[in-house]
This record gives sequence, C-alpha cells and structure tokens, in this order.
Amino acid sequence: MSDLVTFGETMLRLSPPQGERVETARELEFRAAGAESNVAVTAERLGAVATWLSKLPDSPLGRRVVSGLQQHGVDVDVAWSDQGRQGTYYLEYGGKPRGTNVIYDRKGAAVQTTHPEELNLDAIRKARVFYTSGITPALSNRLRETTAQLLKTAKESGTKTAFDVNYRSSLWSEQEARETLTRLFPAVDILVVPFRDAQQVLNFERDPRQLAHHLAAEYNLQTVIVTNGEKGSLAWHNNTVYEQDIYQSDTHDAIGTGDAFVGAFLARRLSGDDVPRALKYAAATASLKRTIAGDIATVTKPEVEAVIGDDMQDISR
Amino acid sequence: MSDLVTFGETMLRLSPPQGERVETARELEFRAAGAESNVAVTAERLGAVATWLSKLPDSPLGRRVVSGLQQHGVDVDVAWSDQGRQGTYYLEYGGKPRGTNVIYDRKGAAVQTTHPEELNLDAIRKARVFYTSGITPALSNRLRETTAQLLKTAKESGTKTAFDVNYRSSLWSEQEARETLTRLFPAVDILVVPFRDAQQVLNFERDPRQLAHHLAAEYNLQTVIVTNGEKGSLAWHNNTVYEQDIYQSDTHDAIGTGDAFVGAFLARRLSGDDVPRALKYAAATASLKRTIAGDIATVTKPEVEAVIGDDMQDISR
Amino acid sequence: MSDLVTFGETMLRLSPPQGERVETARELEFRAAGAESNVAVTAERLGAVATWLSKLPDSPLGRRVVSGLQQHGVDVDVAWSDQGRQGTYYLEYGGKPRGTNVIYDRKGAAVQTTHPEELNLDAIRKARVFYTSGITPALSNRLRETTAQLLKTAKESGTKTAFDVNYRSSLWSEQEARETLTRLFPAVDILVVPFRDAQQVLNFERDPRQLAHHLAAEYNLQTVIVTNGEKGSLAWHNNTVYEQDIYQSDTHDAIGTGDAFVGAFLARRLSGDDVPRALKYAAATASLKRTIAGDIATVTKPEVEAVIGDDMQDISR
Amino acid sequence: MSDLVTFGETMLRLSPPQGERVETARELEFRAAGAESNVAVTAERLGAVATWLSKLPDSPLGRRVVSGLQQHGVDVDVAWSDQGRQGTYYLEYGGKPRGTNVIYDRKGAAVQTTHPEELNLDAIRKARVFYTSGITPALSNRLRETTAQLLKTAKESGTKTAFDVNYRSSLWSEQEARETLTRLFPAVDILVVPFRDAQQVLNFERDPRQLAHHLAAEYNLQTVIVTNGEKGSLAWHNNTVYEQDIYQSDTHDAIGTGDAFVGAFLARRLSGDDVPRALKYAAATASLKRTIAGDIATVTKPEVEAVIGDDMQDISR
Amino acid sequence: MSDLVTFGETMLRLSPPQGERVETARELEFRAAGAESNVAVTAERLGAVATWLSKLPDSPLGRRVVSGLQQHGVDVDVAWSDQGRQGTYYLEYGGKPRGTNVIYDRKGAAVQTTHPEELNLDAIRKARVFYTSGITPALSNRLRETTAQLLKTAKESGTKTAFDVNYRSSLWSEQEARETLTRLFPAVDILVVPFRDAQQVLNFERDPRQLAHHLAAEYNLQTVIVTNGEKGSLAWHNNTVYEQDIYQSDTHDAIGTGDAFVGAFLARRLSGDDVPRALKYAAATASLKRTIAGDIATVTKPEVEAVIGDDMQDISR
Amino acid sequence: MSDLVTFGETMLRLSPPQGERVETARELEFRAAGAESNVAVTAERLGAVATWLSKLPDSPLGRRVVSGLQQHGVDVDVAWSDQGRQGTYYLEYGGKPRGTNVIYDRKGAAVQTTHPEELNLDAIRKARVFYTSGITPALSNRLRETTAQLLKTAKESGTKTAFDVNYRSSLWSEQEARETLTRLFPAVDILVVPFRDAQQVLNFERDPRQLAHHLAAEYNLQTVIVTNGEKGSLAWHNNTVYEQDIYQSDTHDAIGTGDAFVGAFLARRLSGDDVPRALKYAAATASLKRTIAGDIATVTKPEVEAVIGDDMQDISR
Ligand SMILES: [Ca+2]
Ligand SMILES: [Ca+2]
Ligand SMILES: [Ca+2]
Ligand SMILES: [Ca+2]
Ligand SMILES: [Ca+2]
Ligand SMILES: [Ca+2]
Ligand SMILES: [Ca+2]
Ligand SMILES: [Ca+2]
Ligand SMILES: [Ca+2]
Ligand SMILES: [Ca+2]
Ligand SMILES: [Ca+2]
Ligand SMILES: [Ca+2]
Ligand code: NI
Ligand code: NI
Ligand code: NI
Ligand code: NI
Ligand code: NI
Ligand code: NI
Ligand code: NI
Ligand code: NI
Ligand code: NI
Ligand code: NI
Ligand code: NI
Ligand code: NI
Ligand code: NI
Ligand code: NI
Ligand code: NI
Ligand code: NI
Ligand code: NI
Ligand code: NI
Repeated sequence: MSDLVTFGETMLRLSPPQGERVETARELEFRAAGAESNVAVTAERLGAVATWLSKLPDSPLGRRVVSGLQQHGVDVDVAWSDQGRQGTYYLEYGGKPRGTNVIYDRKGAAVQTTHPEELNLDAIRKARVFYTSGITPALSNRLRETTAQLLKTAKESGTKTAFDVNYRSSLWSEQEARETLTRLFPAVDILVVPFRDAQQVLNFERDPRQLAHHLAAEYNLQTVIVTNGEKGSLAWHNNTVYEQDIYQSDTHDAIGTGDAFVGAFLARRLSGDDVPRALKYAAATASLKRTIAGDIATVTKPEVEAVIGDDMQDISR
Repeated sequence: MSDLVTFGETMLRLSPPQGERVETARELEFRAAGAESNVAVTAERLGAVATWLSKLPDSPLGRRVVSGLQQHGVDVDVAWSDQGRQGTYYLEYGGKPRGTNVIYDRKGAAVQTTHPEELNLDAIRKARVFYTSGITPALSNRLRETTAQLLKTAKESGTKTAFDVNYRSSLWSEQEARETLTRLFPAVDILVVPFRDAQQVLNFERDPRQLAHHLAAEYNLQTVIVTNGEKGSLAWHNNTVYEQDIYQSDTHDAIGTGDAFVGAFLARRLSGDDVPRALKYAAATASLKRTIAGDIATVTKPEVEAVIGDDMQDISR
Repeated sequence: MSDLVTFGETMLRLSPPQGERVETARELEFRAAGAESNVAVTAERLGAVATWLSKLPDSPLGRRVVSGLQQHGVDVDVAWSDQGRQGTYYLEYGGKPRGTNVIYDRKGAAVQTTHPEELNLDAIRKARVFYTSGITPALSNRLRETTAQLLKTAKESGTKTAFDVNYRSSLWSEQEARETLTRLFPAVDILVVPFRDAQQVLNFERDPRQLAHHLAAEYNLQTVIVTNGEKGSLAWHNNTVYEQDIYQSDTHDAIGTGDAFVGAFLARRLSGDDVPRALKYAAATASLKRTIAGDIATVTKPEVEAVIGDDMQDISR
Repeated sequence: MSDLVTFGETMLRLSPPQGERVETARELEFRAAGAESNVAVTAERLGAVATWLSKLPDSPLGRRVVSGLQQHGVDVDVAWSDQGRQGTYYLEYGGKPRGTNVIYDRKGAAVQTTHPEELNLDAIRKARVFYTSGITPALSNRLRETTAQLLKTAKESGTKTAFDVNYRSSLWSEQEARETLTRLFPAVDILVVPFRDAQQVLNFERDPRQLAHHLAAEYNLQTVIVTNGEKGSLAWHNNTVYEQDIYQSDTHDAIGTGDAFVGAFLARRLSGDDVPRALKYAAATASLKRTIAGDIATVTKPEVEAVIGDDMQDISR
Repeated sequence: MSDLVTFGETMLRLSPPQGERVETARELEFRAAGAESNVAVTAERLGAVATWLSKLPDSPLGRRVVSGLQQHGVDVDVAWSDQGRQGTYYLEYGGKPRGTNVIYDRKGAAVQTTHPEELNLDAIRKARVFYTSGITPALSNRLRETTAQLLKTAKESGTKTAFDVNYRSSLWSEQEARETLTRLFPAVDILVVPFRDAQQVLNFERDPRQLAHHLAAEYNLQTVIVTNGEKGSLAWHNNTVYEQDIYQSDTHDAIGTGDAFVGAFLARRLSGDDVPRALKYAAATASLKRTIAGDIATVTKPEVEAVIGDDMQDISR
Repeated sequence: MSDLVTFGETMLRLSPPQGERVETARELEFRAAGAESNVAVTAERLGAVATWLSKLPDSPLGRRVVSGLQQHGVDVDVAWSDQGRQGTYYLEYGGKPRGTNVIYDRKGAAVQTTHPEELNLDAIRKARVFYTSGITPALSNRLRETTAQLLKTAKESGTKTAFDVNYRSSLWSEQEARETLTRLFPAVDILVVPFRDAQQVLNFERDPRQLAHHLAAEYNLQTVIVTNGEKGSLAWHNNTVYEQDIYQSDTHDAIGTGDAFVGAFLARRLSGDDVPRALKYAAATASLKRTIAGDIATVTKPEVEAVIGDDMQDISR
C-alpha cells in the first residue's frame, strides 16, 4: 500500500550539452521526465511510499522510463501496450536572451489511450493521496475522461486527491483548459495553482491570497497552494493563509522545480507535518532541485533540512 | 542542376555507446540517417552533384536532419511542414548473439503526407537520375501514390529512374510490398534487389543470376543489380551479367552498407564508368562504410580507389 | 513476498574507457556490481520477484548501489550503517596478453560487520529461495557466521537455499575456503560450482559429471550445477545429469557471466521450468550478458528466448 | 548566384572542456572557425544566399572545415591545395582573472598563398556584396595583394564591398595595419570598425560618432558601423547616425560575436531592411551568439526576432 | 636537491559532471588531490624545485597519484606499500543552496602507517623548506608522531619548516587538534592559519592581525600568514604586518585555493622575494586556481604576473 | 645522471573516437607522441632512469608534451623556443580495408632548428646510452647535422649509441634516407632495423639473419636488431643471432609498438640482462603496447614478466 499514487505521462528527455544546439548536436543526454512521476520520486525520496501509474509502450523506450523512476525507489505499475509511442522531448538550455527551448514529440503516446480499467485502481483506492496534474487531461479526450474517473475513484474510496493546474499552452487552449479544469476541481482536495496559470486560464485578476480564498470557497477545497515564482508561495488551509519565501539557488536546471515543490509538500503532509512546515519543505526542496540536472529532484531529507536550517527552529517548537 | 535527385524519409538516429542498452543509457549519439539521403551523400562524395528531396517538420529536429546532410555537400530541398513529426530510430549495437536492435519511432512523420506538388519536381525533371527505395511507398498510402507519381515525372522528362527494393517487414506485409512494388517496377530503369528481399517478397526461388535475368525481362529494365550479402553482388546490363565479390572489412557499423553500394554505383555510372567498374566501386565503398560509425559513408574517391587497388588495373585497361 | 532473496556485498565498479589504464585515466565509468545482487537482478528481469539484502554505508555511495539495483526492479532492503566503507573495485579491460585487471578496494566495507539481526530475516523466511555465494563468507569472520546463520534461517523456514562456490583467491586461501564451504554445503539445496573452483579448492580431480554426482551424494544436495567455461555446463538433479553447451557470443564485458547464469536458472526454476530447460535459459542469459557493459545482465525474457530459438522446441514439447 | 560572397581563412578550433587547461587536457572539442566564414554562415542562416571562398589543404583537415560550414547551408567554393597547412587555434576559456586564452597555430596555412586567379572570381562579380576582414591582409604579403585585388574585382563589377577592420595584434603591428588598411578603405562601401581598433590602429581619439563621420568622409564610404562592446554600436548612413544598444546575454562563448553582428547586418540589408532595423538584427544576433558554443551563430530568424520583440514595433511601423 | 620538500596524503578525487549527483552518476572525473602535493605542484610550477614524500599502495591507484603529480614536474619519492589502501574522495559540486559535498573514503590509507624511516629523510635535510599541514597529524597516531619527527629532522638540519593548520573537523575534534598542533608549532618557522581555524580550534577571539602577533610571539615564529577568505590575507614578518586583498575570480572549482596560496608564497620566498611581494603572488595564484578544475593550480608564472599587473609596479620598485 | 638519454621530436596526437572520421569529428583525444620519447618512457617504466632532450615552443602546446612525458617519470630537458611550432598529427583508426590514417602537421616545428648547443650535451656525455631514430635526421637539414653531432658527442664520451632506422616515406626519399643513414651508422653501437625498411631503403634482398650479419660487419656494430612484424625479431650480438617470436595480442592501438620494443630492450640491457633475455622483454612489452590507447606503453615490469611467464624459466636459469 502506497501513501501516494500518481498518474500521468512520463517522457524521455533528450538534451544536448550546455551551449550546444539540437540542430547541430551529436550527443544527447537521456533521462526520464514527467510531472506526475517527478512528484512521486520527490515524495518517495522524502519518506513517502509512492507508486506511479501509467501506460507505456512495451519497448526499450518504455523500459527506459521505468528504469529512470525505479532507481529512486518509486513503485512503477504500468499498463504495457503494443500500440502507441513513447513520448519524448528535446530540451535545449539557452540562457539569456535565448531562453530554454523545449521541443515536444509526444503525439500518439501510448498513455493517451489509457482507460481507467487498464490501471491498478486498487492502488488508488488504498492510497492515502492520489495526484495528477492539468497536463494529463490536456493530452487526449480519453485522458480527459480518465482523469475525471480516477479522481472519482479516489474520492469514493476516501483517498484524498491532489491536483496541480500545470497549464501547458502547447497542449490546449485557455478556454479548453478552463472548461475542463473547473469541471475537475470539485473532486480535488488539495489544489496547486501557479499564479500565472490562474491569471492566464482562470482570468483571475487579483492577488495570490485572494486567489486561494476564492478557489477554496468556490470548489470546497481542503488546501490551496499558490506558487508565484521568485515571489514565493502560499497555502490556504482551514481558512488560514501561510506564506513562504523561496530559498535562493544557483540554477543548473529549472525544469521540475514545481514538481519537486509539490512532491515535498505531499510527502511531509503524509508524514504528519502541519501545512506551514510542509510548505517550508516544499520551498527548500524546490530550491535544491534547481541545482540538479534533469527533471528529477535527487535530494535527501537531510539535505532539505540543511537548507531550512534555523527556520526550522521557529516552526518546529 | 543535379546529376542525382533522391526522395525519401530521413530519420534521426539515437544510439547508446557500445555495450550500453537503451533501457539504461544516459547518453545517446545523434545523427541523420535515411536510405535515400545516404545514397545522395555517397554519390555526392564520389563526384556526383546530388539533391535530396523530402518533407520535414519546421523545427530544430528537421533542421538537424538538414545539417547532417548538407555537411556532406548534398543539396537539401525540402518542404517545411507545421504538421507531422520528425521520425527517429534508436539503434543498439549488440554483437552475437544479441544482434543489433532497431527501435523505429517514425509514426506520423511529416514526410508521410508528402504530395508531389510540395516537392521541387523541376529538380527531378532536370536530373539525370532519380532515386528512391521500397521504404518510401511502405510509409503511407499517400507516399505510395507519390512514389509512383515521382517515377512517372522522371520518366516523362527523360530522367532515368533507380530503385532499391529495400524491403522492411516492420512497415508492410510481403503481399502489400509485392503488389505495390511490381506496380512500380515498370517505371524503373535501374533496379537494385537484395537477394533476400527477392526470396521473401517476390517469392523468387532460383539464384541471383536468374533473378536478374527474370526481372530485366519482366519489367524491361536497363540494369538490374542483385546484392547478396557476404556472397557478393552482380549486375545485369545489356544482357550480360557482371559479378563482384565483396571486399573484406572490419565492421564497426553495418547500417547503410547497401545505400553506400547504390550511391557509389550511381555516382560512377553518372561519371561514365561502365557497369563492371561501377560495380567494383560500389563493393569497395560498401566495405569502407562498414568501418564508419553512423548510416552515412563518409568516404573519398581516393579511399575507394585504394580499396580497389590492383583490381582497377584489370578493368580500366 | 519475494520468490528470491539474496544476500552479499555489492561494490561500486570504476573503470576507464577501453584501451585506457587506471594509472593515467581521467574518466571512469561508475556502476553497481556484486555477485548476489547480479543474481537478484537477472532473476527479477526474467520474471521472479527478487529482494537483495545487505548492509551499506549511509552515504551517497551506499545510495549509488541502491540506485543501480532498484532501476532493475529489485527490492533493496538494507541495513544502513554509519560505520564501515562502501567497497569499490577498479576494472581495467586489457585484451590479450594483458588480460582484465581487477583492483579490489573493499577492505572495511560496512557489509563485513553484518549481523543476521540487522537483516530482514522475515524476507528470507517467506521467500521461496535464498541465495548467497562463497564470496560472502570470505569477506570476514563475522560474515562467515552470518552466512551460516542465514542458510540455517532459510532451511528452518522451508526456504530452499542456493549457493555458488565463487572462489576468490584474493579473499582467502584454498584451505580456509575448503573448510568453511564444506561446513556450509549441508545447508545448501542447490549448489553451483565452477569446475575450476572444484579443482582448486576441493582438490577434485575427476570430471564435471563425477563432481556433480560426488557433491550431490556427499552433501545430500537437491541440485548440483557445474559450470565449465567454454566447455558448457551440466546439472545433476534427481540422479540425472543434464548437459548444456554455451551459446557463442561476442564478448564486450565478461564480468558477471556466472551470476547471469545462476540468476536465470533460479528464475526459471521458480517459474516452474524443469531443470534442463532452466539450464538452457541460464546458458542463453550468460551468453547475452557478455555483450553488455557492466556486471549486470540487462536482458529481457524475449531476448533470452530468441537466443534459445529452435532448441526451445526440442525441450518444451 | 549568391547574395553574399566572403573570402578569408577558416581555422579548426580545438578547445578543452571548461575548467581544463590545454597543458593537461586529454580531450578537445573540434570546430570550424573563421571571421569571414562566420559572417557567411550568419547571413545564410538569416536568409541570404552565401558563398565562402578560400584555399584549403586537400586533406581531412581541409574537409573538416568544409563540413563545418556546409552544414549551415553556405556554399563552399575553395581552391584545394597540396601545399600549405590547415590553420588551427586552441581556445581555453578562463573566466576572471584568467581570461580566455587563444593559441594560434596558423603559420604556413594554405590560404596564405591564395592568388586571386585560384578563386571563383565570377562568384564575386555576380554577388551583391563581397566581404572580407582585416585579418585577411594581415596573414601574408600575398594576401595583402589578393585582398586589394578582390575588392577591386568587386567594385569593377558593381558588387558592393563590406570590410571589418578586425585588428589582430598577433598578426601585424599597428603601423603595418594602418598603412595597409587605409590603402584598402577607398575600395570599401560598408566599413565595420570596432572602436577599440580605431583607437589602437588609427590613433583615433574622439568618440564613435565622430569616428563614423570621419571615416565616411575620408574614404567616401556608404555605410560605417562602429561597434563598441558593452556600450553598443552605431551606424552612419546617408549622413545620419543610428545608435543601437546591446541586448543583454549570458555568455557561454564570446568568440564570433562581432562576426554574428556583421553577418546579420548584411543579411538584413540584402533583404531590404533599412539601416536601423538591420542594426537591431545585428545586435540581437550578436547577443544570441554569446549563448552558443563555438565561433558560429547557429541561430534562426524567429529566434533573432524574439530577442528584438517589442522594439520591432517601434521601428517597423 | 630540492628547494621544497612536502609530506602528506594525496587522495584520488572522483567527481561527477556538474549538476549530476554521486547517487545517480555514471561517469566520474578522476584526479590526484592532496594539500601537501598541491603545495609542491604550485611551488614547482612557479619556479621552485619540489619533492613530495609519501607512502602509497603499490598498485595502479598509487601510480595514478604519482602520474598526476609528476606530470607537473614534481619529484615523487614515496614508500611503496603492500599494506594499506589508496585514499579516495568523492566531490559533488552543488552551488547554492546545496553546497559542495565531499565524501571522504580515506580510512586505512597506506600513508597512515608511515614511519619516518620509510621516507627519504635526506631529501628533507638537504631541502631549504619542509612543508606539511594539519591534515597529516590528524590522519593517525602514527602520523602524529611522524609529523613531529619530520619537523624535528628538518629543524636539526637547518631546513626551514612551513605548516598550514588546515583544520578538518571530519578527522579530529577541536580539542585533539589544539593539543597536537600547539605541540608542533614550536618546531615551525612559517605558519599559515586560516582565520576560521584559529577561531574554531585555537578559540582565538580577536582579529587576524592580533592573531598573527600572538602566534609569532607565543611560538617564536619567523613568519605567520593568516588567510581570511574573501576578506584577504596578511603576513606577519619581522614584527611587521603586510596585508593583501584577494583578486576577484570566477570560481569553477574552489578546492585547493589555500594550497595554491601557500605553494606560491613559498616558491616566491625561496626565489628571494620579500614577504609582501610573495603574498601578492600567493593571492594572485589562489585567484587563478579557482578558475581551474581539480585541486591543482595548473598555472604559470606569466599568468600569475598578469593577474598582479600594475600592482607589481608598486611593490617591485 | 640518466641511464638513457634520447633526442627527437614529440608531437601532439589528435584522434577521433573509433568509427568517427576527422572530417566530421567534434571531439578529439589529445596525447603526446614521439618515437624517441616513447622509447624513453618505456625504458623509464621498466627500470631505467631516462631523459628526453628536445626543443619545444614555449606555449601550452609545448607544455602539453612535457606533461604527457613527465607523468611517466621521464626527465624532460628541453630548449624552449619562441620560434617554431609544436608539431601535431591526426590519427584516424580505420580497420580493414580502410586502414589507419595518419595526417602529419609537423612542418615548421621548433625542433627542426635544434642546434646541439641548445641541448644539455652533458646529459648525453654522462649517460650510458644515447638513442635517436631515423625520423630525426629526416626532419630538416639542421637536424641531419645535429643527429650526427649528437652521436659523435656520445661516442667521444664513451656513451653507447642506439639508433632505430624508422624510415618514414612521407619525410624523405629512399635515396636521401640511404645516403644519410649509412653515413650515421658508423657512429652507432646498437642498430634497430625494421626488415621492411632494410628492403625499401637499403635495397637489401636477403633474409633478416643475413641482414643482421651484413650490417654488423659493414658498420662494425655491437648489436643489430631486426624486427619483422608478425614474424618476430632477432638480435645479432657477438657473432650470435638470437631469435624471438612475437607474443600474440589483441590490438587496440598499434602505434608505438616498435618504440616499446626498443625501450624495453635498452632498459633490460642497461639493467644487465643478456641479449636474448632483453629481446624477450622487448617482444613482451611490444605485445602489451598494442592493447593500450596512444603511442605510449603504459606498462609495468610485473606485467611484462607475466606475459613472458614460463619462457622466463628457460632463459633465466
Ligand atoms: Ca518504494
Ligand atoms: Ca512542473
Ligand atoms: Ca553539392
Ligand atoms: Ca540502408
Ligand atoms: Ca520488483
Ligand atoms: Ca560474478
Ligand atoms: Ca545555401
Ligand atoms: Ca570576430
Ligand atoms: Ca622538478
Ligand atoms: Ca587547502
Ligand atoms: Ca625518472
Ligand atoms: Ca614508432
Ligand atoms: Ni532518475
Ligand atoms: Ni516537470
Ligand atoms: Ni547540466
Ligand atoms: Ni560521456
Ligand atoms: Ni553526415
Ligand atoms: Ni561506434
Ligand atoms: Ni566524457
Ligand atoms: Ni543497473
Ligand atoms: Ni564497454
Ligand atoms: Ni570523454
Ligand atoms: Ni566558426
Ligand atoms: Ni561550452
Ligand atoms: Ni597526470
Ligand atoms: Ni587541497
Ligand atoms: Ni569542471
Ligand atoms: Ni563526448
Ligand atoms: Ni603519457
Ligand atoms: Ni582507443
């Protein structure tokens, strides 16, 4: 029985060395990368027992994904498929003013046809928390339904649900996202919203605190987290708002920062921490992630606690 | 104006270092690879002016293909597309008894929707030879038609046509291949047939010599080349059969051997060599290819001639 | 509950690129490597549920070992220690006449102080097979006792015991080995003996068949396997001897061949195969291992079966 | 027919990984690099049809240069020589306070003996712009004459001439440079002057605006560009001076920044942009170059335009 | 005869590429690294004749250390041992907030049993300066005695002694360090103290100037150097204190900065420079070290002097 | 005082990974390589004290050569020059039928202007053996004289002279070589002649035994060694001929095989071995060299003796 079960697409990420361009590269780094598996790995590494559910092509590429996640101790429980591809993405780090360039090649991925009955629903039913993100329903109509059904399965079994809006404009329009997501929110207990996504998709015009209050009230949420980049994050819980600054970091690879944040928050809530303390862990884990190559936060609990340092004192008492 | 114009799909090839498996690899080599562009590169390198036509996604991946071919001096004249993927393939070298494992990821490639009007048909019309292979019509129904139309375009303008059967069982059944290919052969002038393909697809049961005679007669071909792996090759031309042994080689990478053979044969015929001499070039170039990493035969004319060595004397007289 | 539980030391292997020497190398490959974890990985990959027990330093080095095994799906259940080192070994591939050079740096490894009570004995009790090898008792006096106690624990719970002699002359003398091992054999059900070890340690002078008969009788063994390098292997079972040739292979890395053999044999026996069929799997898996970099046999069941090919027919009937 | 033809030396650049020193390095990156080919590549990539003329040794090293340029689509039209070397240079990135260290090894390069008649003068005659830089006449007496003759050839055929002062103190003294360059300037239409070069070589003591006015008047130039490092650049044209700030960038590799600037300016002028708009492209392309490893600006037009962003609005009107 | 003889442990350093973690790394860089050999290398590179004494395992690992030092011209004169390991350490660069993580694996290193009579004491006796650091007596009781005996040997032969406190909290407690070091100081002529070490180990509470005065008086030292990180350094000599700012640098690898400082100071003193000038060299060399990968300062005298630049004028007079 | 002093050119060798071509490579391995320094390194590694004399450019490239030799313990005593280049060569391994391709870029190397007075002639005078090879006089007229003078210097001081014909057809014609070498032979004590060179340059038509007898008589040599590739070698000494087979090896890199042979022969003769025993060492060392990347034989005495094995018995008695 896992504390945390997540569902979503994991891709293989291909990236040239720093300074090189995909157009002329001769060597690519090769890693597993996906929002929901990133969350599972972070949670597992910080003490939770985590399972990742998905559908993968029965090929060395699908197995490369499994290898990349299992090495961190996550249980991988997937439907193996003879149809559908393994999604990949190419990541080219640029720096200013070029920026980091992402080229998705995920069309026709096996995961897009996942029917709930292909998955280990019992794992969801027995878990304490089920997590997926807004990327999942954006991937196909089938996954739009599957996402709703998995959230429903969780709710019906008393498994809490966690959801990160994670809006990707390359996958769907703001309007599609808004309509789908607002239909999913009633089944969510813990909602994570990047503030930029709220502005863009929900047309929300006020500030992060108001957003949290608004969403909590509108969708009867138990916890709302709003992340706001450099400006920090906040959590609404039991009608109280807790704020958290970011921890400064040198950034080697920013991808997966948000997933590290969510994984850490869930791991600590599962282990009994209160919301502000879990939020502190989340911020510290996110800052560590940025120093690490790849999407995945290969961190340890002592490392996270070293970042928190004295702050800990204030809050642990 | 090019001597040789080729059309077909070029993929990006991703391969782990020797001894590593895709399932656990962290680094992949990254190269352009495609039968028809391999032929164009070899021909260009051996003295022909060559153009490769195709359709590519308008992305760094599409441009990676272009870069990989242009570096050899081939003219690349492609339709850039906002639809469709860049095909890739993963190559894992195994050795005995594991074998070399190829994982194609070419579904939905932009090239599959190529309509002749998207291509520079004038390049074909002005060329001296147009080449494509049996991989092309195997990729989609659209390409089945396009292949036929391009051969027709060539024929109508007096451009000679060359075609390699190149049967890929992962792309179509033997029956589909047989039906399609035999409908294309009448438009072909120079036909290249791996003997194994003839046995498998054409259900031909006799020997390579008889195959060449049979095909030449049946389809009114000008030249028929039958390649037969370690056993060498032969060419039927003007009712004469010329035989050619292989040149022994240490094999670093066997992929592209056949394309190197064809590219060299066409280059030498275009430059005026007679059939047996072009065949000798073809065999020597193929043997050199096997020592070189990647699909592409990065060879020079003096290197090919050094392989041929004294044999040359016999034949140049 | 695992089908197979193994116990032993896993080291980190450091090796320069081919042709380079440790003395002047600047880059080393870095992998997990250990006889008993190699066996667990192979078994897991071929269908068994496998757990590896050990003791590791609580450090990034200990976690590097875990990562290298978990990626293959093996359950890792270790005692984390603040005392003791992580063993390492340097491997320098040489070729003829230099040979492959191994430099062990495993003195004071945490595993050497493992007391049975530090381990998850229940995992052994509930498993169907428990495996360790002659390397384990050679590592320390403590492990000599622990090995005996673990075999006893297994026997008492009805868990079958498997044991590979795996004589390492750098760890102990022939006499020490002989005395210790012959004291352990009575607790063993399935004994694997490299023929060279039998000659060297047991001073056995006759042939592999006679060795198997002799050992089975002497120690009341259920199954005896004798491996004999290029000459193949045999299994004694129920008074019958089954012989098995090796499958020819190109050798990229010979380390771990024996462990791949044992892991495959155990996996297939656990899944119900009879002895000769399991032996065939073992030989095929061992041949595949030799094509793969590192100690670990990153193979799949279909790959093993492809090696066996027609042979399969004869035996499966 | 090319829009732009350039002539000059292209070297092979060898550089150790960051932090490593040439003195102890074991691996070097290997790339083509030369001011005039850098300009051709940038221009080609931004929409011009560009040809690079030069003289190269007929060897794999000469062909390595060709490969490195052709991959970007530039036409390479060189005299192949059996005399003379391929110039190389070693680049060691240092950071503060070590600095970037360049070790030239270009003595006796084949290009130094280039006589105009060895080059495709028709390419120059038919081009719209001919470009070379102050490095070229600094390389040998022969090239001093050849540079003058090529500029003359261009002028006589109505091909506009562009020239970058590009003073290299390792190649000639300030006085030699001054005497030679001022003799060449009358044949130049578009002159590019790094302000530091003007101070050092021309002993010019006033500010960049005055420099531009002065040079335009003195040598009857059509366009004068003065680049001034971090302080930006300006262009004098038709008696008006246009100023352009730099775009901020993270610097991975600063070499080739000036060539990217010039290549972009020429490409945009050739495509009909007015001077201030071409200058904006130049600055944006230069800032992108700094994020890319090697001398060459592997950029695309959309990337350059993304850097320019809103500024574009102001100017395109 | 060497100007400078040093004695101490040199380890092999293993480090993953930037952004990678030891826990999941597949490739490690491999270098020689040790405080006293770092000092010897720096001194040799800046003009001294230097010898490094130590004890090493007679293995490729011990020879790897020798190779890494000899390449810089240092004479290596070691006792080869069949007992004891080669110490290693793993270095993982982190950046903020992760920090650089060092994992020592030096237990049982051969060097720890070094008896003075195993070493070339004549080399010490004939040298002008003998150097070791506080790491050496911290490694074993045997080395505590050996350190004292070597300093005594030097003193008795008129060889000046230099000593860097170099406190490592992982090797011994503050109290052990204090007791041992203060017993060694009377035999020291030139003492180097990182100010942080003085605060931590010597419980010194005042400022660096006072520390220098205090130590000089207390232990009758000839020269005292206090380094104080970003805040610079100072040297007490003949009752005068000379201060020196750091030279700003981009830090690629900070390890070995202190050793570069000491090596340069000693080299310049040996060549006759006065204290403030040697201090300037030390600061400049230290700043260069930070730009270079590995523990070793691969610098040249002209490079150091280029950093000093005009400052030189002031002081050389 | 060195046992062995050698003089000659050492180049920097640049080579792409196996299977890659210089024409398209992006990364090159970087090593020091030269016949006479190869001999010095081998001799030093097998117990001699060796010094290499030469002239190098005062640059990181010259220092790269020094680093590559010093790491093996050879004393490097060179004239540093501000004139002249560092020679380099590109090596591309091919396999059959491509072959290994060497592209020399050594024109204008600093070493070519070496006057004897620039060298440490005392080192030669005090040495027991002085060695150079036929490459040296082939490099320039100046070196033709210098070679003669150095041999004379040695002879006059009672230093024995050793010389390897080492004919390189790319450096001089057979006739030039013949005239020069036969003028040098009278000053030689130990002459090494590849049999192929004797056939080609000396027009010698009989067999290796006869060659040895003939040369010994003609030039009053003390020892003549004739190497004959796969067919083994022989040594003429005191009117007796000793024959030696090669030891079989897997060849990773054949370059430097002959130098390893000579270095080992000289080292063993210097340490007192008789001719047949030194010849055995030479053959064994040469076979080990072939398994090692680069020109240099990074071997140890125990490794060489392990190759010799039982043979040793026969001969040591
Ligand atoms: Ca787990
Ligand atoms: Ca995310
Ligand atoms: Ca072309
Ligand atoms: Ca092919
Ligand atoms: Ca498992
Ligand atoms: Ca094993
Ligand atoms: Ca073009
Ligand atoms: Ca430039
Ligand atoms: Ca020295
Ligand atoms: Ca230090
Ligand atoms: Ca030496
Ligand atoms: Ca040689
Ligand atoms: Ni991972
Ligand atoms: Ni993510
Ligand atoms: Ni990175
Ligand atoms: Ni790598
Ligand atoms: Ni290519
Ligand atoms: Ni390869
Ligand atoms: Ni590498
Ligand atoms: Ni593994
Ligand atoms: Ni390998
Ligand atoms: Ni490398
Ligand atoms: Ni460039
Ligand atoms: Ni870079
Ligand atoms: Ni070294
Ligand atoms: Ni250090
Ligand atoms: Ni680094
Ligand atoms: Ni690489
Ligand atoms: Ni070396
Ligand atoms: Ni190699």
